[in-house]
Amino acid sequence: MSFLDRIRACHRWRADDYLPFLLDGDPRPLGWVTPAFAARLRDFPEVFDVTEAAVCLAPRLGDFESRSAALKAVLEQLHGAGEIPAWRGEDYGICRRWDDEVIFKMERGAVPLFGVPAYGIHVNGFVRTPEGPRLWVGRRSRHKALAPGKLDHLVAGGQPYGLSLMENVVKEAAEEASVPEDLARRARPVGALGYLCARPEGQRNDVLFVYDLELPADFVPTPNDDEVEEFFLWPMEKILERLKDSDDFKFNVALVNLDFALRHGVLTPDAEPGYQAIAEGLQGRLTG
Amino acid sequence: MSFLDRIRACHRWRADDYLPFLLDGDPRPLGWVTPAFAARLRDFPEVFDVTEAAVCLAPRLGDFESRSAALKAVLEQLHGAGEIPAWRGEDYGICRRWDDEVIFKMERGAVPLFGVPAYGIHVNGFVRTPEGPRLWVGRRSRHKALAPGKLDHLVAGGQPYGLSLMENVVKEAAEEASVPEDLARRARPVGALGYLCARPEGQRNDVLFVYDLELPADFVPTPNDDEVEEFFLWPMEKILERLKDSDDFKFNVALVNLDFALRHGVLTPDAEPGYQAIAEGLQGRLTG
Repeated sequence: MSFLDRIRACHRWRADDYLPFLLDGDPRPLGWVTPAFAARLRDFPEVFDVTEAAVCLAPRLGDFESRSAALKAVLEQLHGAGEIPAWRGEDYGICRRWDDEVIFKMERGAVPLFGVPAYGIHVNGFVRTPEGPRLWVGRRSRHKALAPGKLDHLVAGGQPYGLSLMENVVKEAAEEASVPEDLARRARPVGALGYLCARPEGQRNDVLFVYDLELPADFVPTPNDDEVEEFFLWPMEKILERLKDSDDFKFNVALVNLDFALRHGVLTPDAEPGYQAIAEGLQGRLTG
Repeated sequence: MSFLDRIRACHRWRADDYLPFLLDGDPRPLGWVTPAFAARLRDFPEVFDVTEAAVCLAPRLGDFESRSAALKAVLEQLHGAGEIPAWRGEDYGICRRWDDEVIFKMERGAVPLFGVPAYGIHVNGFVRTPEGPRLWVGRRSRHKALAPGKLDHLVAGGQPYGLSLMENVVKEAAEEASVPEDLARRARPVGALGYLCARPEGQRNDVLFVYDLELPADFVPTPNDDEVEEFFLWPMEKILERLKDSDDFKFNVALVNLDFALRHGVLTPDAEPGYQAIAEGLQGRLTG
Protein backbone atom coordinates (compact mmCIF):
# COMPACT_ATOMS: atom_id res chain seq x y z
CA MET A 1 0.00 0.00 0.00
CA SER A 2 1.25 3.49 -0.73
CA PHE A 3 1.50 6.15 1.97
CA LEU A 4 -1.39 7.87 0.27
CA ASP A 5 -3.51 4.72 0.49
CA ARG A 6 -2.84 4.64 4.25
CA ILE A 7 -4.11 8.19 4.47
CA ARG A 8 -7.14 7.42 2.29
CA ALA A 9 -7.99 4.52 4.61
CA CYS A 10 -8.56 7.13 7.37
CA HIS A 11 -11.02 9.09 5.25
CA ARG A 12 -13.39 6.36 4.02
CA TRP A 13 -16.80 7.85 4.64
CA ARG A 14 -19.84 8.71 2.49
CA ALA A 15 -22.57 11.08 3.65
CA ASP A 16 -25.07 8.98 1.69
CA ASP A 17 -24.69 6.17 4.22
CA TYR A 18 -25.92 8.30 7.13
CA LEU A 19 -28.52 10.70 8.44
CA PRO A 20 -27.28 13.91 10.02
CA PHE A 21 -27.51 14.20 13.80
CA LEU A 22 -28.71 17.74 14.50
CA LEU A 23 -29.07 19.99 17.49
CA ASP A 24 -31.31 22.96 18.23
CA GLY A 25 -32.13 23.78 14.62
CA ASP A 26 -28.46 24.33 13.76
CA PRO A 27 -28.11 23.11 10.14
CA ARG A 28 -24.50 21.97 10.69
CA PRO A 29 -24.52 18.27 11.53
CA LEU A 30 -23.02 17.59 14.94
CA GLY A 31 -22.65 13.94 13.94
CA TRP A 32 -24.08 11.19 11.74
CA VAL A 33 -26.08 8.03 12.38
CA THR A 34 -26.84 5.00 10.22
CA PRO A 35 -30.46 4.57 9.12
CA ALA A 36 -30.62 1.39 11.23
CA PHE A 37 -29.49 3.17 14.38
CA ALA A 38 -31.83 6.08 13.60
CA ALA A 39 -34.70 3.57 13.47
CA ARG A 40 -33.69 2.24 16.89
CA LEU A 41 -33.61 5.78 18.30
CA ARG A 42 -37.30 6.16 17.36
CA ASP A 43 -37.91 4.10 20.52
CA PHE A 44 -36.88 7.16 22.56
CA PRO A 45 -39.15 9.94 21.26
CA GLU A 46 -38.67 12.02 24.40
CA VAL A 47 -34.95 12.31 23.54
CA PHE A 48 -34.74 12.08 19.74
CA ASP A 49 -36.84 13.53 16.97
CA VAL A 50 -36.29 11.03 14.15
CA THR A 51 -37.47 11.89 10.64
CA GLU A 52 -36.69 10.48 7.21
CA ALA A 53 -34.06 13.19 6.81
CA ALA A 54 -32.37 13.53 10.18
CA VAL A 55 -32.08 12.64 13.84
CA CYS A 56 -32.49 15.70 16.08
CA LEU A 57 -31.85 15.89 19.77
CA ALA A 58 -35.18 16.96 21.31
CA PRO A 59 -35.17 20.76 21.57
CA ARG A 60 -36.58 20.60 25.10
CA LEU A 61 -33.13 19.31 26.16
CA GLY A 62 -31.74 22.80 26.32
CA ASP A 63 -28.58 22.56 28.39
CA PHE A 64 -25.54 20.40 29.09
CA GLU A 65 -27.02 18.71 32.15
CA SER A 66 -30.38 17.76 30.67
CA ARG A 67 -28.83 16.57 27.39
CA SER A 68 -26.19 14.50 29.17
CA ALA A 69 -28.70 12.93 31.56
CA ALA A 70 -31.21 12.07 28.81
CA LEU A 71 -28.50 10.51 26.61
CA LYS A 72 -27.09 8.59 29.56
CA ALA A 73 -30.48 7.01 30.26
CA VAL A 74 -30.92 5.97 26.62
CA LEU A 75 -27.39 4.65 26.23
CA GLU A 76 -27.53 2.63 29.44
CA GLN A 77 -30.69 1.01 28.22
CA LEU A 78 -29.06 0.17 24.86
CA HIS A 79 -25.99 -1.09 26.69
CA GLY A 80 -28.20 -3.28 28.87
CA ALA A 81 -29.67 -4.74 25.67
CA GLY A 82 -26.16 -5.51 24.41
CA GLU A 83 -26.30 -2.90 21.66
CA ILE A 84 -23.20 -0.93 22.68
CA PRO A 85 -20.60 -3.67 22.88
CA ALA A 86 -17.60 -1.36 23.29
CA TRP A 87 -18.93 0.21 26.51
CA ARG A 88 -16.05 1.95 28.33
CA GLY A 89 -17.54 3.56 31.42
CA GLU A 90 -15.80 6.82 30.46
CA ASP A 91 -17.37 10.03 29.18
CA TYR A 92 -16.26 12.20 26.28
CA GLY A 93 -17.22 15.88 26.15
CA ILE A 94 -18.94 16.50 22.81
CA CYS A 95 -18.34 19.84 21.12
CA ARG A 96 -18.14 21.08 17.55
CA ARG A 97 -14.52 22.11 18.01
CA TRP A 98 -12.14 21.37 20.85
CA ASP A 99 -12.38 24.83 22.37
CA ASP A 100 -16.12 25.27 21.76
CA GLU A 101 -18.71 24.92 24.48
CA VAL A 102 -19.26 21.30 25.50
CA ILE A 103 -22.79 20.46 24.36
CA PHE A 104 -23.15 17.26 26.34
CA LYS A 105 -21.09 14.39 27.64
CA MET A 106 -21.50 10.91 26.23
CA GLU A 107 -20.25 7.41 27.01
CA ARG A 108 -17.14 6.88 24.91
CA GLY A 109 -18.37 3.57 23.47
CA ALA A 110 -21.43 5.30 21.98
CA VAL A 111 -19.51 8.11 20.29
CA PRO A 112 -18.85 6.17 17.03
CA LEU A 113 -22.57 5.34 16.75
CA PHE A 114 -23.41 9.04 16.65
CA GLY A 115 -20.38 10.10 14.60
CA VAL A 116 -19.90 13.11 16.84
CA PRO A 117 -16.46 14.75 17.15
CA ALA A 118 -13.98 13.03 19.43
CA TYR A 119 -10.55 14.20 20.47
CA GLY A 120 -7.39 12.41 21.38
CA ILE A 121 -3.72 12.92 22.11
CA HIS A 122 -0.96 11.09 20.21
CA VAL A 123 2.59 11.42 21.48
CA ASN A 124 5.61 10.76 19.28
CA GLY A 125 8.25 9.59 21.75
CA PHE A 126 11.48 9.99 19.83
CA VAL A 127 15.22 9.92 20.29
CA ARG A 128 17.52 12.10 18.20
CA THR A 129 20.44 10.24 16.60
CA PRO A 130 23.04 11.32 14.04
CA GLU A 131 21.23 9.07 11.54
CA GLY A 132 17.90 10.78 12.14
CA PRO A 133 15.09 10.37 14.66
CA ARG A 134 14.13 7.01 16.14
CA LEU A 135 10.58 6.58 17.33
CA TRP A 136 9.25 4.45 20.17
CA VAL A 137 6.57 2.06 18.93
CA GLY A 138 4.21 0.17 21.24
CA ARG A 139 2.43 -3.09 20.54
CA ARG A 140 -1.16 -2.91 21.78
CA SER A 141 -2.31 -5.67 24.06
CA ARG A 142 -3.82 -8.66 22.27
CA HIS A 143 -6.75 -8.35 24.70
CA LYS A 144 -7.82 -4.84 23.65
CA ALA A 145 -11.28 -4.53 22.10
CA LEU A 146 -10.02 -2.19 19.38
CA ALA A 147 -7.03 -3.03 17.18
CA PRO A 148 -5.59 -5.84 19.37
CA GLY A 149 -1.90 -6.52 18.76
CA LYS A 150 -1.50 -3.56 16.40
CA LEU A 151 1.47 -1.21 16.54
CA ASP A 152 0.79 2.15 18.15
CA HIS A 153 2.48 5.27 19.53
CA LEU A 154 4.45 5.47 22.75
CA VAL A 155 1.41 7.16 24.26
CA ALA A 156 -2.02 7.78 22.73
CA GLY A 157 -5.47 8.05 24.13
CA GLY A 158 -8.94 9.43 23.78
CA GLN A 159 -9.71 12.66 25.54
CA PRO A 160 -11.99 12.09 28.54
CA TYR A 161 -14.40 14.79 29.67
CA GLY A 162 -12.94 17.24 32.15
CA LEU A 163 -9.18 16.91 31.52
CA SER A 164 -6.93 19.36 29.74
CA LEU A 165 -4.96 17.86 26.86
CA MET A 166 -1.66 18.09 28.76
CA GLU A 167 -3.26 16.45 31.82
CA ASN A 168 -4.28 13.62 29.53
CA VAL A 169 -0.77 13.38 28.07
CA VAL A 170 0.66 13.08 31.59
CA LYS A 171 -1.99 10.54 32.65
CA GLU A 172 -1.67 8.34 29.57
CA ALA A 173 2.13 8.59 29.57
CA ALA A 174 2.19 7.24 33.13
CA GLU A 175 -0.42 4.53 32.49
CA GLU A 176 0.78 3.25 29.14
CA ALA A 177 4.54 3.70 29.25
CA SER A 178 5.58 4.57 32.84
CA VAL A 179 6.84 7.98 31.71
CA PRO A 180 7.50 10.16 34.79
CA GLU A 181 5.43 13.34 34.94
CA ASP A 182 8.35 15.77 34.61
CA LEU A 183 9.46 14.02 31.44
CA ALA A 184 5.92 13.76 30.03
CA ARG A 185 5.42 17.49 30.52
CA ARG A 186 8.24 18.14 28.03
CA ALA A 187 5.88 16.90 25.29
CA ARG A 188 5.44 19.74 22.82
CA PRO A 189 2.21 20.23 20.88
CA VAL A 190 2.95 20.22 17.15
CA GLY A 191 -0.45 20.39 15.47
CA ALA A 192 -3.72 18.58 14.98
CA LEU A 193 -4.86 15.98 12.44
CA GLY A 194 -8.49 15.27 11.62
CA TYR A 195 -10.42 12.59 9.77
CA LEU A 196 -13.91 11.19 9.40
CA CYS A 197 -13.90 7.47 8.78
CA ALA A 198 -16.32 4.54 8.72
CA ARG A 199 -14.77 1.80 10.85
CA PRO A 200 -16.10 -1.52 12.18
CA GLU A 201 -16.81 0.16 15.53
CA GLY A 202 -18.76 2.97 13.85
CA GLN A 203 -17.70 6.38 12.68
CA ARG A 204 -14.46 7.96 13.81
CA ASN A 205 -14.90 11.73 13.59
CA ASP A 206 -11.59 12.42 15.25
CA VAL A 207 -9.19 15.24 15.88
CA LEU A 208 -5.81 14.03 17.11
CA PHE A 209 -3.71 16.55 18.98
CA VAL A 210 -0.16 15.57 18.17
CA TYR A 211 2.79 15.98 20.54
CA ASP A 212 6.51 15.39 20.08
CA LEU A 213 8.33 14.17 23.16
CA GLU A 214 12.08 14.06 22.78
CA LEU A 215 13.40 11.34 25.08
CA PRO A 216 16.89 10.78 26.46
CA ALA A 217 18.70 7.93 24.71
CA ASP A 218 18.78 5.94 27.97
CA PHE A 219 15.07 6.18 28.73
CA VAL A 220 13.22 2.90 28.25
CA PRO A 221 9.43 2.93 28.47
CA THR A 222 7.71 0.04 30.22
CA PRO A 223 4.04 -0.90 30.11
CA ASN A 224 2.24 0.07 33.32
CA ASP A 225 -1.23 -1.21 32.53
CA ASP A 226 -2.62 -3.94 30.31
CA GLU A 227 -2.95 -1.71 27.24
CA VAL A 228 0.53 -2.17 25.81
CA GLU A 229 2.54 -5.39 25.56
CA GLU A 230 5.98 -4.19 24.60
CA PHE A 231 7.90 -1.26 23.15
CA PHE A 232 10.46 -1.00 20.35
CA LEU A 233 12.75 1.89 19.36
CA TRP A 234 12.77 1.95 15.56
CA PRO A 235 14.44 4.17 12.98
CA MET A 236 11.87 6.10 10.96
CA GLU A 237 12.89 4.21 7.80
CA LYS A 238 11.77 0.94 9.39
CA ILE A 239 8.50 2.48 10.53
CA LEU A 240 7.78 3.85 7.06
CA GLU A 241 8.63 0.49 5.50
CA ARG A 242 6.23 -1.31 7.85
CA LEU A 243 3.55 1.27 7.15
CA LYS A 244 3.83 0.58 3.44
CA ASP A 245 4.31 -3.16 3.49
CA SER A 246 2.09 -4.40 6.30
CA ASP A 247 -1.13 -3.75 8.19
CA ASP A 248 0.79 -3.90 11.49
CA PHE A 249 0.02 -0.32 12.54
CA LYS A 250 -3.35 0.81 13.91
CA PHE A 251 -5.10 2.67 11.10
CA ASN A 252 -4.82 6.23 12.43
CA VAL A 253 -1.20 5.84 13.57
CA ALA A 254 -0.26 6.06 9.89
CA LEU A 255 -1.35 9.70 9.83
CA VAL A 256 0.69 10.65 12.87
CA ASN A 257 3.76 8.75 11.69
CA LEU A 258 3.64 10.33 8.24
CA ASP A 259 3.12 13.76 9.79
CA PHE A 260 6.20 13.14 11.95
CA ALA A 261 8.18 12.04 8.89
CA LEU A 262 7.20 15.25 7.08
CA ARG A 263 7.84 17.60 9.99
CA HIS A 264 11.24 16.05 10.70
CA GLY A 265 12.43 16.02 7.11
CA VAL A 266 12.57 12.21 6.93
CA LEU A 267 10.56 12.48 3.72
CA THR A 268 11.69 15.29 1.43
CA PRO A 269 9.87 16.95 -1.46
CA ASP A 270 12.88 16.53 -3.75
CA ALA A 271 13.15 12.78 -3.15
CA GLU A 272 9.72 11.45 -2.20
CA PRO A 273 7.30 10.88 -5.08
CA GLY A 274 3.89 12.11 -4.02
CA TYR A 275 5.22 14.36 -1.23
CA GLN A 276 2.70 17.08 -2.04
CA ALA A 277 -0.16 14.58 -2.21
CA ILE A 278 0.92 13.13 1.16
CA ALA A 279 1.05 16.62 2.69
CA GLU A 280 -2.39 17.45 1.28
CA GLY A 281 -3.78 14.10 2.39
CA LEU A 282 -2.59 14.68 5.96
CA GLN A 283 -4.35 18.04 5.73
CA GLY A 284 -7.58 16.22 4.88
CA ARG A 285 -7.46 17.35 1.26
CA LEU A 286 -7.64 14.17 -0.77
CA THR A 287 -8.35 14.13 -4.45
CA GLY A 288 -8.76 11.30 -6.90
CA MET B 1 -7.23 40.79 12.92
CA SER B 2 -7.34 37.29 14.34
CA PHE B 3 -4.89 34.59 13.26
CA LEU B 4 -7.81 32.95 11.50
CA ASP B 5 -8.55 36.14 9.55
CA ARG B 6 -4.92 36.17 8.37
CA ILE B 7 -5.39 32.63 7.12
CA ARG B 8 -8.72 33.49 5.48
CA ALA B 9 -7.01 36.37 3.67
CA CYS B 10 -4.92 33.75 1.84
CA HIS B 11 -7.99 31.86 0.65
CA ARG B 12 -10.13 34.65 -0.84
CA TRP B 13 -11.21 33.23 -4.15
CA ARG B 14 -14.55 32.45 -5.84
CA ALA B 15 -14.88 30.12 -8.82
CA ASP B 16 -17.76 32.31 -10.08
CA ASP B 17 -15.27 35.06 -10.89
CA TYR B 18 -13.33 32.92 -13.37
CA LEU B 19 -13.46 30.57 -16.31
CA PRO B 20 -11.55 27.30 -16.01
CA PHE B 21 -8.32 26.98 -17.98
CA LEU B 22 -8.33 23.47 -19.42
CA LEU B 23 -5.93 21.18 -21.17
CA ASP B 24 -6.38 18.25 -23.54
CA GLY B 25 -9.96 17.47 -22.56
CA ASP B 26 -9.00 16.86 -18.93
CA PRO B 27 -11.99 18.12 -16.90
CA ARG B 28 -9.79 19.19 -13.96
CA PRO B 29 -8.99 22.88 -14.36
CA LEU B 30 -5.27 23.49 -14.62
CA GLY B 31 -5.90 27.15 -13.78
CA TRP B 32 -8.46 29.94 -13.98
CA VAL B 33 -8.78 33.14 -16.01
CA THR B 34 -10.98 36.20 -15.61
CA PRO B 35 -13.65 36.73 -18.28
CA ALA B 36 -11.81 39.89 -19.37
CA PHE B 37 -8.54 38.04 -19.88
CA ALA B 38 -10.39 35.19 -21.62
CA ALA B 39 -11.80 37.76 -24.05
CA ARG B 40 -8.29 39.03 -24.76
CA LEU B 41 -7.08 35.48 -25.40
CA ARG B 42 -9.65 35.19 -28.22
CA ASP B 43 -7.11 37.21 -30.21
CA PHE B 44 -4.89 34.11 -30.30
CA PRO B 45 -7.16 31.39 -31.74
CA GLU B 46 -4.20 29.26 -32.82
CA VAL B 47 -3.21 28.91 -29.12
CA PHE B 48 -6.45 29.18 -27.14
CA ASP B 49 -9.92 27.79 -27.70
CA VAL B 50 -12.09 30.32 -25.87
CA THR B 51 -15.77 29.53 -25.27
CA GLU B 52 -18.39 30.97 -22.92
CA ALA B 53 -17.55 28.22 -20.45
CA ALA B 54 -13.80 27.79 -20.57
CA VAL B 55 -10.42 28.63 -22.02
CA CYS B 56 -8.70 25.56 -23.46
CA LEU B 57 -5.15 25.31 -24.64
CA ALA B 58 -5.38 24.30 -28.31
CA PRO B 59 -5.22 20.49 -28.49
CA ARG B 60 -2.76 20.66 -31.39
CA LEU B 61 -0.19 21.85 -28.83
CA GLY B 62 0.55 18.33 -27.71
CA ASP B 63 3.87 18.49 -25.91
CA PHE B 64 5.98 20.57 -23.53
CA GLU B 65 7.99 22.26 -26.27
CA SER B 66 5.13 23.30 -28.53
CA ARG B 67 2.98 24.49 -25.60
CA SER B 68 5.83 26.49 -24.09
CA ALA B 69 6.78 28.08 -27.40
CA ALA B 70 3.18 29.01 -28.29
CA LEU B 71 2.57 30.54 -24.87
CA LYS B 72 5.87 32.41 -24.99
CA ALA B 73 4.92 34.05 -28.29
CA VAL B 74 1.52 35.14 -26.96
CA LEU B 75 2.86 36.39 -23.64
CA GLU B 76 5.68 38.37 -25.25
CA GLN B 77 3.12 40.07 -27.46
CA LEU B 78 0.96 40.91 -24.42
CA HIS B 79 4.04 42.11 -22.58
CA GLY B 80 4.96 44.32 -25.52
CA ALA B 81 1.48 45.83 -25.30
CA GLY B 82 2.05 46.56 -21.59
CA GLU B 83 -0.48 43.98 -20.46
CA ILE B 84 1.82 41.94 -18.23
CA PRO B 85 3.28 44.63 -16.00
CA ALA B 86 5.01 42.24 -13.57
CA TRP B 87 7.20 40.66 -16.28
CA ARG B 88 10.12 38.85 -14.62
CA GLY B 89 12.12 37.25 -17.40
CA GLU B 90 12.01 33.97 -15.46
CA ASP B 91 10.10 30.78 -16.27
CA TYR B 92 8.01 28.64 -13.95
CA GLY B 93 7.39 24.97 -14.75
CA ILE B 94 3.63 24.41 -14.72
CA CYS B 95 2.35 21.08 -13.43
CA ARG B 96 -0.73 19.87 -11.57
CA ARG B 97 1.37 18.77 -8.63
CA TRP B 98 5.00 19.42 -7.84
CA ASP B 99 6.17 15.95 -8.83
CA ASP B 100 3.87 15.60 -11.84
CA GLU B 101 5.04 15.96 -15.41
CA VAL B 102 5.75 19.60 -16.32
CA ILE B 103 3.08 20.51 -18.88
CA PHE B 104 4.72 23.71 -20.12
CA LYS B 105 6.90 26.52 -18.86
CA MET B 106 5.53 30.02 -18.53
CA GLU B 107 6.87 33.47 -17.77
CA ARG B 108 6.50 33.96 -14.02
CA GLY B 109 4.73 37.30 -14.38
CA ALA B 110 1.93 35.68 -16.40
CA VAL B 111 1.29 32.84 -13.94
CA PRO B 112 -1.23 34.80 -11.79
CA LEU B 113 -3.22 35.71 -14.93
CA PHE B 114 -3.77 32.02 -15.67
CA GLY B 115 -4.17 30.94 -12.03
CA VAL B 116 -2.02 27.89 -12.70
CA PRO B 117 -0.16 26.17 -9.83
CA ALA B 118 3.05 27.83 -8.71
CA TYR B 119 5.57 26.58 -6.20
CA GLY B 120 7.89 28.30 -3.81
CA ILE B 121 10.27 27.71 -0.92
CA HIS B 122 9.92 29.49 2.42
CA VAL B 123 12.70 29.08 4.94
CA ASN B 124 12.20 29.72 8.65
CA GLY B 125 15.65 30.80 9.82
CA PHE B 126 15.48 30.36 13.58
CA VAL B 127 17.66 30.35 16.67
CA ARG B 128 16.85 28.16 19.65
CA THR B 129 16.86 29.98 23.00
CA PRO B 130 15.81 28.88 26.49
CA GLU B 131 12.79 31.19 26.11
CA GLY B 132 11.71 29.53 22.86
CA PRO B 133 12.62 29.96 19.21
CA ARG B 134 13.53 33.33 17.69
CA LEU B 135 12.92 33.82 14.01
CA TRP B 136 14.83 35.95 11.52
CA VAL B 137 12.52 38.39 9.76
CA GLY B 138 13.46 40.31 6.62
CA ARG B 139 12.08 43.61 5.43
CA ARG B 140 11.48 43.50 1.68
CA SER B 141 13.00 46.25 -0.39
CA ARG B 142 10.76 49.27 -0.83
CA HIS B 143 11.51 49.02 -4.56
CA LYS B 144 10.02 45.55 -5.07
CA ALA B 145 7.02 45.30 -7.38
CA LEU B 146 5.17 42.97 -5.01
CA ALA B 147 4.66 43.78 -1.33
CA PRO B 148 7.33 46.53 -1.06
CA GLY B 149 8.53 47.16 2.50
CA LYS B 150 6.59 44.19 3.92
CA LEU B 151 8.07 41.79 6.45
CA ASP B 152 9.10 38.41 5.05
CA HIS B 153 11.04 35.26 5.85
CA LEU B 154 14.81 34.97 6.05
CA VAL B 155 14.68 33.32 2.65
CA ALA B 156 11.71 32.81 0.35
CA GLY B 157 11.30 32.58 -3.35
CA GLY B 158 9.33 31.28 -6.27
CA GLN B 159 10.45 28.04 -7.83
CA PRO B 160 12.04 28.62 -11.25
CA TYR B 161 11.85 25.97 -13.93
CA GLY B 162 14.66 23.45 -13.84
CA LEU B 163 15.90 23.71 -10.24
CA SER B 164 15.34 21.24 -7.43
CA LEU B 165 13.76 22.73 -4.32
CA MET B 166 16.99 22.41 -2.32
CA GLU B 167 18.96 24.05 -5.15
CA ASN B 168 16.52 26.93 -4.94
CA VAL B 169 16.89 27.11 -1.14
CA VAL B 170 20.67 27.36 -1.54
CA LYS B 171 20.40 29.93 -4.36
CA GLU B 172 17.88 32.16 -2.59
CA ALA B 173 19.68 31.84 0.76
CA ALA B 174 22.88 33.15 -0.85
CA GLU B 175 21.13 35.91 -2.81
CA GLU B 176 18.77 37.21 -0.17
CA ALA B 177 20.63 36.67 3.08
CA SER B 178 24.26 35.74 2.31
CA VAL B 179 23.80 32.32 3.91
CA PRO B 180 26.79 30.10 3.00
CA GLU B 181 25.89 26.97 1.08
CA ASP B 182 26.93 24.49 3.78
CA LEU B 183 24.69 26.26 6.27
CA ALA B 184 21.77 26.59 3.82
CA ARG B 185 21.92 22.85 3.11
CA ARG B 186 21.03 22.19 6.75
CA ALA B 187 17.52 23.50 6.00
CA ARG B 188 15.07 20.71 6.75
CA PRO B 189 11.83 20.29 4.80
CA VAL B 190 8.91 20.33 7.21
CA GLY B 191 5.82 20.25 5.01
CA ALA B 192 3.86 22.13 2.36
CA LEU B 193 1.14 24.78 2.61
CA GLY B 194 -1.30 25.57 -0.20
CA TYR B 195 -3.77 28.30 -1.00
CA LEU B 196 -5.73 29.77 -3.90
CA CYS B 197 -6.20 33.50 -3.54
CA ALA B 198 -7.33 36.47 -5.62
CA ARG B 199 -4.67 39.16 -5.23
CA PRO B 200 -4.07 42.49 -6.98
CA GLU B 201 -1.48 40.79 -9.22
CA GLY B 202 -3.94 38.02 -10.17
CA GLN B 203 -4.52 34.62 -8.73
CA ARG B 204 -2.04 32.96 -6.43
CA ASN B 205 -2.51 29.21 -6.74
CA ASP B 206 0.50 28.43 -4.63
CA VAL B 207 2.14 25.56 -2.84
CA LEU B 208 4.84 26.70 -0.44
CA PHE B 209 7.43 24.11 0.52
CA VAL B 210 8.42 25.03 4.04
CA TYR B 211 11.89 24.54 5.51
CA ASP B 212 13.25 25.06 9.03
CA LEU B 213 16.85 26.20 9.18
CA GLU B 214 18.30 26.24 12.68
CA LEU B 215 21.00 28.92 12.78
CA PRO B 216 23.88 29.39 15.22
CA ALA B 217 23.24 32.23 17.67
CA ASP B 218 26.16 34.20 16.22
CA PHE B 219 25.08 34.00 12.58
CA VAL B 220 23.85 37.33 11.23
CA PRO B 221 22.26 37.34 7.77
CA THR B 222 23.05 40.26 5.47
CA PRO B 223 21.24 41.27 2.30
CA ASN B 224 23.18 40.30 -0.81
CA ASP B 225 20.88 41.67 -3.49
CA ASP B 226 18.35 44.46 -3.65
CA GLU B 227 15.45 42.27 -2.51
CA VAL B 228 15.83 42.67 1.26
CA GLU B 229 16.61 45.86 3.17
CA GLU B 230 17.35 44.59 6.65
CA PHE B 231 16.93 41.63 8.98
CA PHE B 232 15.66 41.37 12.57
CA LEU B 233 15.81 38.44 15.01
CA TRP B 234 12.49 38.43 16.81
CA PRO B 235 10.95 36.21 19.48
CA MET B 236 7.90 34.35 18.16
CA GLU B 237 5.66 36.26 20.57
CA LYS B 238 6.58 39.52 18.87
CA ILE B 239 6.02 38.03 15.44
CA LEU B 240 2.59 36.71 16.41
CA GLU B 241 1.68 40.09 17.94
CA ARG B 242 2.67 41.91 14.74
CA LEU B 243 0.72 39.39 12.68
CA LYS B 244 -2.40 40.10 14.69
CA ASP B 245 -2.07 43.84 15.13
CA SER B 246 -0.60 45.09 11.85
CA ASP B 247 -0.46 44.48 8.13
CA ASP B 248 3.34 44.55 8.25
CA PHE B 249 3.83 40.98 7.05
CA LYS B 250 3.43 39.89 3.41
CA PHE B 251 0.09 38.09 3.18
CA ASN B 252 1.34 34.52 2.75
CA VAL B 253 4.06 34.83 5.41
CA ALA B 254 1.24 34.63 7.98
CA LEU B 255 0.60 31.01 6.99
CA VAL B 256 4.23 29.98 7.34
CA ASN B 257 4.68 31.85 10.64
CA LEU B 258 1.56 30.30 12.14
CA ASP B 259 2.60 26.86 10.91
CA PHE B 260 5.99 27.40 12.60
CA ALA B 261 4.23 28.49 15.81
CA LEU B 262 2.13 25.33 15.77
CA ARG B 263 4.95 22.93 14.93
CA HIS B 264 7.21 24.41 17.61
CA GLY B 265 4.60 24.47 20.37
CA VAL B 266 4.58 28.27 20.60
CA LEU B 267 0.80 28.07 20.34
CA THR B 268 -0.75 25.26 22.40
CA PRO B 269 -4.19 23.67 22.14
CA ASP B 270 -4.77 24.07 25.89
CA ALA B 271 -4.04 27.81 25.88
CA GLU B 272 -4.80 29.19 22.42
CA PRO B 273 -8.47 29.81 21.65
CA GLY B 274 -9.15 28.67 18.14
CA TYR B 275 -6.11 26.35 17.97
CA GLN B 276 -8.07 23.69 16.09
CA ALA B 277 -9.52 26.24 13.68
CA ILE B 278 -6.02 27.63 13.05
CA ALA B 279 -4.68 24.13 12.41
CA GLU B 280 -7.55 23.38 10.03
CA GLY B 281 -7.17 26.75 8.33
CA LEU B 282 -3.48 26.09 7.68
CA GLN B 283 -4.57 22.77 6.18
CA GLY B 284 -6.81 24.67 3.78
CA ARG B 285 -9.98 23.57 5.57
CA LEU B 286 -11.79 26.79 6.40
CA THR B 287 -15.39 26.89 7.53
CA GLY B 288 -17.66 29.80 8.36
